[in-house]
Amino acid sequence: MLRGCAGLLRSWALRGPKRGRSFSSEVLHVDHSLPNPSWNEDMRLLFDQFMKKSEDGSWKRLPSYKCNPPERIEDVKIFFPDAKLLKEQMSQAQQFPRSLGEGVGFEYAMFHNHVEDRTVCIFQGGPHLQGVPGFLHGGAIATMIDSALGMCAILTGGIAMTANLNINFRRPIPLCSVVVINCQLDRVEGRKLFVSCNIRSMDEKTLYSEATSTFVKLDPKKKN
Amino acid sequence: MLRGCAGLLRSWALRGPKRGRSFSSEVLHVDHSLPNPSWNEDMRLLFDQFMKKSEDGSWKRLPSYKCNPPERIEDVKIFFPDAKLLKEQMSQAQQFPRSLGEGVGFEYAMFHNHVEDRTVCIFQGGPHLQGVPGFLHGGAIATMIDSALGMCAILTGGIAMTANLNINFRRPIPLCSVVVINCQLDRVEGRKLFVSCNIRSMDEKTLYSEATSTFVKLDPKKKN
Repeated sequence: MLRGCAGLLRSWALRGPKRGRSFSSEVLHVDHSLPNPSWNEDMRLLFDQFMKKSEDGSWKRLPSYKCNPPERIEDVKIFFPDAKLLKEQMSQAQQFPRSLGEGVGFEYAMFHNHVEDRTVCIFQGGPHLQGVPGFLHGGAIATMIDSALGMCAILTGGIAMTANLNINFRRPIPLCSVVVINCQLDRVEGRKLFVSCNIRSMDEKTLYSEATSTFVKLDPKKKN
Repeated sequence: MLRGCAGLLRSWALRGPKRGRSFSSEVLHVDHSLPNPSWNEDMRLLFDQFMKKSEDGSWKRLPSYKCNPPERIEDVKIFFPDAKLLKEQMSQAQQFPRSLGEGVGFEYAMFHNHVEDRTVCIFQGGPHLQGVPGFLHGGAIATMIDSALGMCAILTGGIAMTANLNINFRRPIPLCSVVVINCQLDRVEGRKLFVSCNIRSMDEKTLYSEATSTFVKLDPKKKN
């Protein structure tokens, strides 16, 4: 069951939700990892570079949606059978990094390299992600790190949740600038997936943050 | 200069922006740490309990706004004279934890105890903060932790930024539930402020997360 769910999740991460289902809606099927008018020149340039790298199949762009497909919600019920997933709340639920409006929040696209177990996230942080005036909030940086590291862990080891996240913030990231998050799987020990990343400027000269994280694969036989 | 700015920031955190200034606007002066119709019964009950504790002056409610007052933006220019704070972007900027709509994002109120160097944050995480279906995104939890620990550090040691944030996620937090973040200042070493927190259920029986963090006081004499 676990493997089945992991496979379904990997499929969802790489290809997106199945079309033509009864739950289909425009909101569900808009892929937000594609360029939009709010992306600046740097963001478009990096996107084009990674799309070029994807042509030989070594890298793959990961689609990204606002809402979860119903099959994913059903998966979670397997892992957390006691969870009270209230219908009204679930109908309003949105993926946090996609819940802000176009251009003001998290603009990002991720690419995964299966041979090297690496995920790269290109990220433009909008003006509604402010902490200290002029700079991104530490929580916004943590959100993007957790999302990118999570994708790296899930695509390698199957459905998993963050157990630890340790971030060193080296320099503040200016609002509306574009940065690159480089993630890699370091090792696997039983159900634990150890991943790490750094955040650098587009020209790689400035190191903004570094992080390590432990994800734990969900096991339907154990109460998590 | 540093002390002056720190004093200004503390004043802002405790009393809110000065009224009657040329920059005044409704958006700037709406205090979002007060109850609104989206708060559930648990959230209101906790708020009332802490307001009761505030009557003798031992605890103080901290107001919270969407935008920074112009005096705070000027402070930042002292610490980061090379920062390119673009006028257009700054005019759109919003404090990240207050940038989502009422009830769907971060609903929270903070209280500070100056004698004990403690900050408590009561937090109701809305449906747009979802990670794994039915539960809060790790980044949303990190955002609230960084905000609460940051307030604890700033109110004790003056203007500061996060240098490290280390979170252990013990249990997933159900979407739309209410939790309590208990923060404390552990020690001060030179410019470093060491703070820690835990997140518990309202009845204190469930430990959801624990975190430690290092903040560094900004020094206008040094290039940060």
